[in-house]
Amino acid sequence: MLKTQRVFSLLVVLLLLTYSCKERQQDQTDASSKQMTENSDPLPSWNEGATKTAIIDFVNRVSQEGSPDFVPVTDRIATFDNDGNLWSEQPLYFQLFFALDRVRELASDHPEWKQKQPFKGVLEEDMDAVLQSGMHGLLELVMASHAGMSAMEFDSIVTNWLSTALHPRFNRPYTELVYQPMLELLDFLRSNDFKVFIVSGGGVEFMRTWVPEVYGIPADRIVGSSIKTEFSYENGNARILRLPEIDFIDDKEGKPVGIHKVIGKKPIFASGNSDGDLQMLQYTASNNLPSFMLYLHHTDEKREWAYDRDSHIGKLDKGLDEAAARGWTVIDMENDWKLIYPFELP
Amino acid sequence: MLKTQRVFSLLVVLLLLTYSCKERQQDQTDASSKQMTENSDPLPSWNEGATKTAIIDFVNRVSQEGSPDFVPVTDRIATFDNDGNLWSEQPLYFQLFFALDRVRELASDHPEWKQKQPFKGVLEEDMDAVLQSGMHGLLELVMASHAGMSAMEFDSIVTNWLSTALHPRFNRPYTELVYQPMLELLDFLRSNDFKVFIVSGGGVEFMRTWVPEVYGIPADRIVGSSIKTEFSYENGNARILRLPEIDFIDDKEGKPVGIHKVIGKKPIFASGNSDGDLQMLQYTASNNLPSFMLYLHHTDEKREWAYDRDSHIGKLDKGLDEAAARGWTVIDMENDWKLIYPFELP
Repeated sequence: MLKTQRVFSLLVVLLLLTYSCKERQQDQTDASSKQMTENSDPLPSWNEGATKTAIIDFVNRVSQEGSPDFVPVTDRIATFDNDGNLWSEQPLYFQLFFALDRVRELASDHPEWKQKQPFKGVLEEDMDAVLQSGMHGLLELVMASHAGMSAMEFDSIVTNWLSTALHPRFNRPYTELVYQPMLELLDFLRSNDFKVFIVSGGGVEFMRTWVPEVYGIPADRIVGSSIKTEFSYENGNARILRLPEIDFIDDKEGKPVGIHKVIGKKPIFASGNSDGDLQMLQYTASNNLPSFMLYLHHTDEKREWAYDRDSHIGKLDKGLDEAAARGWTVIDMENDWKLIYPFELP
Repeated sequence: MLKTQRVFSLLVVLLLLTYSCKERQQDQTDASSKQMTENSDPLPSWNEGATKTAIIDFVNRVSQEGSPDFVPVTDRIATFDNDGNLWSEQPLYFQLFFALDRVRELASDHPEWKQKQPFKGVLEEDMDAVLQSGMHGLLELVMASHAGMSAMEFDSIVTNWLSTALHPRFNRPYTELVYQPMLELLDFLRSNDFKVFIVSGGGVEFMRTWVPEVYGIPADRIVGSSIKTEFSYENGNARILRLPEIDFIDDKEGKPVGIHKVIGKKPIFASGNSDGDLQMLQYTASNNLPSFMLYLHHTDEKREWAYDRDSHIGKLDKGLDEAAARGWTVIDMENDWKLIYPFELP
């Protein structure tokens, strides 16, 4: 592949811009899981060790009234990156698979695409040609697959895609490739009255179609990249229309900006897996309250993937250095997790 | 005054652009008030009549399991305009008083303002001159008072102002000029598991300094106008800086867009008081679920103010017509409310 590293980092921010209006499940709060965590291991899929201990200690320290590090409930904000942090992101961001499938699906209405890059490359499975089309070509792919419809239509399109598309390696729906240990961590935080938000470079509207059901995080707690929208009102029919223009890129410096924009408070707990999350972790580390910074290091070639400093997706380089220098907690996937996906549960 | 109507509607959208990171109180949910509402009048400051009955009937219909109009908790989204709807907005938007005071406060650092409109007009209390400076001049006022500092500094500036500034007519802090009947309505909705959001043309960062404490609505449930911000990171000091550029105007067509952007779901309950809220109400009325549209009509010259179709602030003209045509509920302030402000409580 050509210039993959640079072009793929464009893909990160370009292809994943979107938001919507579906939510199948309320934020799973408090009561139900609280009891569980008091009586048993809150993180059963995590191996015993420094990582697990550090997480549990922090959550207990800030949650227990009377603790010198006690943090009031209103300030217990936790932010999680999504791609490569709550679900896998290899061999390509899953939303990118969606965009490519969508272009193939629309191709019959666009005979001109057979002669026109980057669409020609997508249709001929020539990824080199796609990537050679550069930023402009990638934008064309985004807009062709993510704009030009109402928010409700886009929601249906993504929902349909998710119900049929299968991951090339695992041959399972993408939404099954979420990390069981992280699902437990989300529950553990919520059972201690944390408000848990997604803060992802992915498109907010893409995520809203499945995040509420899969993670138990409601539509209004998802911060992501977005395209512009406008209000349309005709004959009593009120709709939000998706326009072919970028509104916000929720990556790198964009993450603290997105957090401030939507959440309005500094997190005390931030979790990510790439250099795109570094600014979010720096922002969290600057909180005057006790805070916890967590990196997920992909070290598990067998069960998932192993990649870091040189990866074209989810590159973790500066973040790894800063984590070491500042004593942030780094999950070693291979050693810290008993299993990866929920389907491995006994 | 010159061209007041047009220029004031510019003020609406221009002067109130901002957001921040303070929250003093968690969303007041459920348990505590639930018991109260089951045993007694949930809206004690409302006179008996069609308006009160319509509100209570709707909330009961959508909240009671087994009701044909039952709406699941995840879809119980309520959105409230703020200025003129939850607190007063006369004789000027309160955020505008802040901007004018701020310019006066900064004047000693800006000797050039004595000769330069619109600042000269502000310093000489010559509002005609201020308004004559038009859109460009007003933008200068906004940026001088709302940009050029960190989010945290802005938060302190607003908090300090609110703790000393007094409303010219009532000689009380602005945050005491909230409507007691509406506070009861917010509680009633929350006690029935509604998620309550502010959706205001006012600046989100301005509102975040006081809304959590005064309304019990947390920082992440405030949708408002905003200026652009950027992430700054120097020597471990992570800050959000406020830039002199408009990001989003949460008024008219902007309201459904803002709701979609931040909340991600269509409301089933929307409450406003001006034509700037009409699109939010239209959007809510288009919900496939049962929905309730509520306008507050300022009819009480004695206790508050009376204004509607010709007002330079909070103009309610098209909205009044559409409410009548579509059977939306309209609060007649004079007749529907026993009292206006909390300080009138016995």
